[in-house]
Amino acid sequence: MRAAVLVRAGEMVIEQRPAPRPAPGEVIVRVDAVGVCGSDTHYYDHGRIGRFVVDSPLVLGHEAGGVIIELGAGVTDRRVGQRVSIEPGVPDLTCPQCRSGAYNLCPNMRFYATPPVDGAFTEQVAVHAAFAHPVPEDMSDNAAALLEPLSVGVWACRKAGVSPGDRVLVTGAGAIGLVCLQTALAFGATEVTVSDVNPHRLALARELGATQTVDASTTNPWSGAPPTVLLECSGNAEATGWGLRRLAAGARAVLVGMGGDSLDLPLSVVQERELHVTGTFRYANTWPTAIDLVSTGRVNLDRLVTSTFGLADAPAALTAARDDARSVKAVVLPQA
Amino acid sequence: MRAAVLVRAGEMVIEQRPAPRPAPGEVIVRVDAVGVCGSDTHYYDHGRIGRFVVDSPLVLGHEAGGVIIELGAGVTDRRVGQRVSIEPGVPDLTCPQCRSGAYNLCPNMRFYATPPVDGAFTEQVAVHAAFAHPVPEDMSDNAAALLEPLSVGVWACRKAGVSPGDRVLVTGAGAIGLVCLQTALAFGATEVTVSDVNPHRLALARELGATQTVDASTTNPWSGAPPTVLLECSGNAEATGWGLRRLAAGARAVLVGMGGDSLDLPLSVVQERELHVTGTFRYANTWPTAIDLVSTGRVNLDRLVTSTFGLADAPAALTAARDDARSVKAVVLPQA
Amino acid sequence: MRAAVLVRAGEMVIEQRPAPRPAPGEVIVRVDAVGVCGSDTHYYDHGRIGRFVVDSPLVLGHEAGGVIIELGAGVTDRRVGQRVSIEPGVPDLTCPQCRSGAYNLCPNMRFYATPPVDGAFTEQVAVHAAFAHPVPEDMSDNAAALLEPLSVGVWACRKAGVSPGDRVLVTGAGAIGLVCLQTALAFGATEVTVSDVNPHRLALARELGATQTVDASTTNPWSGAPPTVLLECSGNAEATGWGLRRLAAGARAVLVGMGGDSLDLPLSVVQERELHVTGTFRYANTWPTAIDLVSTGRVNLDRLVTSTFGLADAPAALTAARDDARSVKAVVLPQA
Amino acid sequence: MRAAVLVRAGEMVIEQRPAPRPAPGEVIVRVDAVGVCGSDTHYYDHGRIGRFVVDSPLVLGHEAGGVIIELGAGVTDRRVGQRVSIEPGVPDLTCPQCRSGAYNLCPNMRFYATPPVDGAFTEQVAVHAAFAHPVPEDMSDNAAALLEPLSVGVWACRKAGVSPGDRVLVTGAGAIGLVCLQTALAFGATEVTVSDVNPHRLALARELGATQTVDASTTNPWSGAPPTVLLECSGNAEATGWGLRRLAAGARAVLVGMGGDSLDLPLSVVQERELHVTGTFRYANTWPTAIDLVSTGRVNLDRLVTSTFGLADAPAALTAARDDARSVKAVVLPQA
Repeated sequence: MRAAVLVRAGEMVIEQRPAPRPAPGEVIVRVDAVGVCGSDTHYYDHGRIGRFVVDSPLVLGHEAGGVIIELGAGVTDRRVGQRVSIEPGVPDLTCPQCRSGAYNLCPNMRFYATPPVDGAFTEQVAVHAAFAHPVPEDMSDNAAALLEPLSVGVWACRKAGVSPGDRVLVTGAGAIGLVCLQTALAFGATEVTVSDVNPHRLALARELGATQTVDASTTNPWSGAPPTVLLECSGNAEATGWGLRRLAAGARAVLVGMGGDSLDLPLSVVQERELHVTGTFRYANTWPTAIDLVSTGRVNLDRLVTSTFGLADAPAALTAARDDARSVKAVVLPQA
Repeated sequence: MRAAVLVRAGEMVIEQRPAPRPAPGEVIVRVDAVGVCGSDTHYYDHGRIGRFVVDSPLVLGHEAGGVIIELGAGVTDRRVGQRVSIEPGVPDLTCPQCRSGAYNLCPNMRFYATPPVDGAFTEQVAVHAAFAHPVPEDMSDNAAALLEPLSVGVWACRKAGVSPGDRVLVTGAGAIGLVCLQTALAFGATEVTVSDVNPHRLALARELGATQTVDASTTNPWSGAPPTVLLECSGNAEATGWGLRRLAAGARAVLVGMGGDSLDLPLSVVQERELHVTGTFRYANTWPTAIDLVSTGRVNLDRLVTSTFGLADAPAALTAARDDARSVKAVVLPQA
Repeated sequence: MRAAVLVRAGEMVIEQRPAPRPAPGEVIVRVDAVGVCGSDTHYYDHGRIGRFVVDSPLVLGHEAGGVIIELGAGVTDRRVGQRVSIEPGVPDLTCPQCRSGAYNLCPNMRFYATPPVDGAFTEQVAVHAAFAHPVPEDMSDNAAALLEPLSVGVWACRKAGVSPGDRVLVTGAGAIGLVCLQTALAFGATEVTVSDVNPHRLALARELGATQTVDASTTNPWSGAPPTVLLECSGNAEATGWGLRRLAAGARAVLVGMGGDSLDLPLSVVQERELHVTGTFRYANTWPTAIDLVSTGRVNLDRLVTSTFGLADAPAALTAARDDARSVKAVVLPQA
Repeated sequence: MRAAVLVRAGEMVIEQRPAPRPAPGEVIVRVDAVGVCGSDTHYYDHGRIGRFVVDSPLVLGHEAGGVIIELGAGVTDRRVGQRVSIEPGVPDLTCPQCRSGAYNLCPNMRFYATPPVDGAFTEQVAVHAAFAHPVPEDMSDNAAALLEPLSVGVWACRKAGVSPGDRVLVTGAGAIGLVCLQTALAFGATEVTVSDVNPHRLALARELGATQTVDASTTNPWSGAPPTVLLECSGNAEATGWGLRRLAAGARAVLVGMGGDSLDLPLSVVQERELHVTGTFRYANTWPTAIDLVSTGRVNLDRLVTSTFGLADAPAALTAARDDARSVKAVVLPQA
């Protein structure tokens, strides 16, 4: 089978590789769609993300959907032919973090496209059967793949405890900001304001239900009641500080966007308003909810897809967002 | 001014009474609409509810909206002319329960239409300014009144922690069941099933978004995944037991419907599935959220109003639900 | 090796059986002490507990400690010789309940001494390495075994959210009631009242720190402020109802004691006071905390041991509590 | 009566002032002891704290206990002669924050010794009856006064959710750090490590139960398992950053110490470990628990008092901590 392999920063080659064999408890999935994440682009551009370094060839891609084509020992055979969305990180299931439900914090996590674990820009992948989540027949391949970024939004809204009555501020209108907007509305938020510097993305935010958008490139005197929730999706220090200072007393801030090792936190604001600040690291137990949100029409993932590419064009997919201000989410179709 | 006064069980008279004067911190509200609650009917029929006995003349009605026409000392004068929804229970604000936010459990609560406190089947009432909640201009008088039962639904959904991914079972499709259905959907529930014996109410439940309805008059083998939340709104022991036994492991049950002093709880089910069971007593801090839910179109209160009556016809309003299987919510218009 | 095998209700034989072999990921533990639980006695007396029926020979005992003597594939060899306490239920680790941290509700749980899974009244047992918890050298064999019932108390206190300021009522002063008393104090409860009909157990409760004891065989007008937490450990319907009616507004009740299929719940009390009622089913993620509580001297498990027996005397151990009003916890020493 | 009045930074005079008169709902307290807080010293030294400026004469002191000597209208007369601890901030009780239990965030809070509200370095003060908390007869005057800083510790432990199994790190061993140490132990923490640069304070921390102390003036390779809770009481940016980086995955950090407008937050650590970070602003509903903790001997407040002063010596009390490395808490006795 073919795989798009990152050899070093900026250099990707299409290789023939042996198809994966399922270990006990695993399934083999024929990959039909894989979303491109900012982290994939970052690996492609820089060959590393923080302490994770690409020092041997790596297959990128961790937002994947497809069809189960083969089963490992111990997996019930009714699953062959099932369309699935892949949860790309498999924890050890036995450590204290896993046993207490926080498996995203498992120290032994094996996560797609994170050195040395290969990802999904390839025709077939192996995954633990419990992490290949069945999706309804009417869900598109692209949506099945994008349940992964949707999970980030579900996790952020759970951490923030979004519910009716909340006024939510989403800073950053990239793919994650736009799923957070939609999940916040689905969790019942009364208002969702989205800020960004990109007018195309703000227009899309309004189309997807934002009650207000803010052009972050200008000074913005806030109007209206202060937000009760901040979902920070820009990774931009200035936007984060601006967002935190807007918040109501007792508000919750979830820092989703990755933006360097440190952040200038407005300490006196955090104290005087007793803000709750937390960060997210991936997600846990989100797929069933994410599937529900798409199935019931509360979240539209297909609308986020702005371009698709064959496997051989994976490099173009990785740079699509940089090359086009209108790009939100590029998807690679490994069978094409 | 006129007031509809319950003299004794089954006997209501229209009296002329002096208009109320506002104490410091209070406002006077001209009452435009008052919903009829099952508890009003129960007082009318029986002259008591449990330990609360009508032993002197009592004005019923506690679901009220209107317009502020006069201010007590210390209330800012911009409020005259403001349309408001009345929160009908005013606590002492200083006891430990109040200071910790659980003011619905205040031992010194003064609640409309609960002996010896008069209610709102009258032309004007006095209420603490902070418990007269401003409503948007485009909210109807009926909806302003029915924010009170909506608050019951908001409170139940908060107690249950309803959020996306939840499968909710609402037992009982009276006015409270129908607001719980709507609030559960607004809190993001994936599925909401409603059960009742009344086909008219089940039809209305479907119209208002129920994903499934169950005719409780027949034996009902449950289909589909077990509910993660029970909102019990029937007060019927059999329905409650049936609902509890349907629940998934770890599910939450909120007993809203009043149904006698005791309940046969399926103990081994509660233990083996670690169900969380609680009851609700009115509500606290719900009005802002209830207003938001109606303003954003997520909850439709007007659809619940099945008949309206002038003040002189309050007795007919009180028995409307008994006389007509299609009745859901009768409203008294005291100015008519 | 020898095992005490329940052949049918009331008939136990000592058999020679082959020693267990460790599956991958398992360890073999030489069993040094096993506590007798009321459920063991119930199986011995009746051959069943509810839907769990002893229809083939069964080894009882699920409160066990010992020493690791052999390792299965994949277990690090530094564990041989390690003293451990056994968590006697091993879930599948992959189902939705397990992945979300509620592994005690796993539908595929294999739990010692629950048909058809054998328990620990035997010289050696196999267990998943992650469920054999290392204990400090200065912890006694008996205490290592009794971390299992202590886990029940830790779980109950977590479910109740016991913390400083709480006034706790423990109904029932058997072994579980006495660990709940101690854990409630360790969680910071201000007062812990214990009720029972057995004066010996009430005396022991006072010795272990109960701030008040109540003789449940007499009518007891409650004195003092109402409890904020009920830990029901008697399984007695009358005691449960009495306890629930004593509670403060907003209190939490945890039903630990097993007492039949149904319970007469005081519904109006639950509603008017907004009580939170839940049941417990075993425990999850409790061993580290239980070990800490014993190691720091906050809980005394050795004091609960009232008699010890060799393996051949397991039947006498099983009936010790019935035969002696002073008995609290009998322990079987399989190597004796 | 006499009052110690701060005229401007560094200048305090003893004045004769008319005794306060009780408004309705208030009581007059004869002040017997007042602790000196770092904020008092900061006002004395600088004439301001952030946006709070002493631009007219101000009485300092907000940690006060005494005896009720006079009642305002509406207060039951059994309270004359009652010994009380004063909760020094009285909110409006009616705003949304107050009604939801977060009265410490009330925008209309009137707090002792915060311009323009006078404090307790005086012979008599007025306070809302519900904020004058009765204390047991055997509690010392000093302890009654120091229930205020103890409340800070109770609030921090509640925000952090400290319970058995937690390993707590307290950075800073001043009076607040030493109450946080004690409250963390009372909430059941398994280990409490205290760090500071002052060896006298570290010795006192060990005396009061710290399981480990760390000399923050040296490089400190952490030994042992990472803390699950950080209670930051130093206000020192370096200590805060060091503490946050020590934490376990999923840990909670409560920033109690005031330390400037901003803080360099280790963002990637917060995200990868999903730390929960919050700040505290005073406290709410803490006095009953604080009283319980002292009454049951779990917290020792008297041990923190290192010097006492008459009212005329208030300036010396304000600088005691600066002048003596052994000082922890100076107390002013206004009747002396």
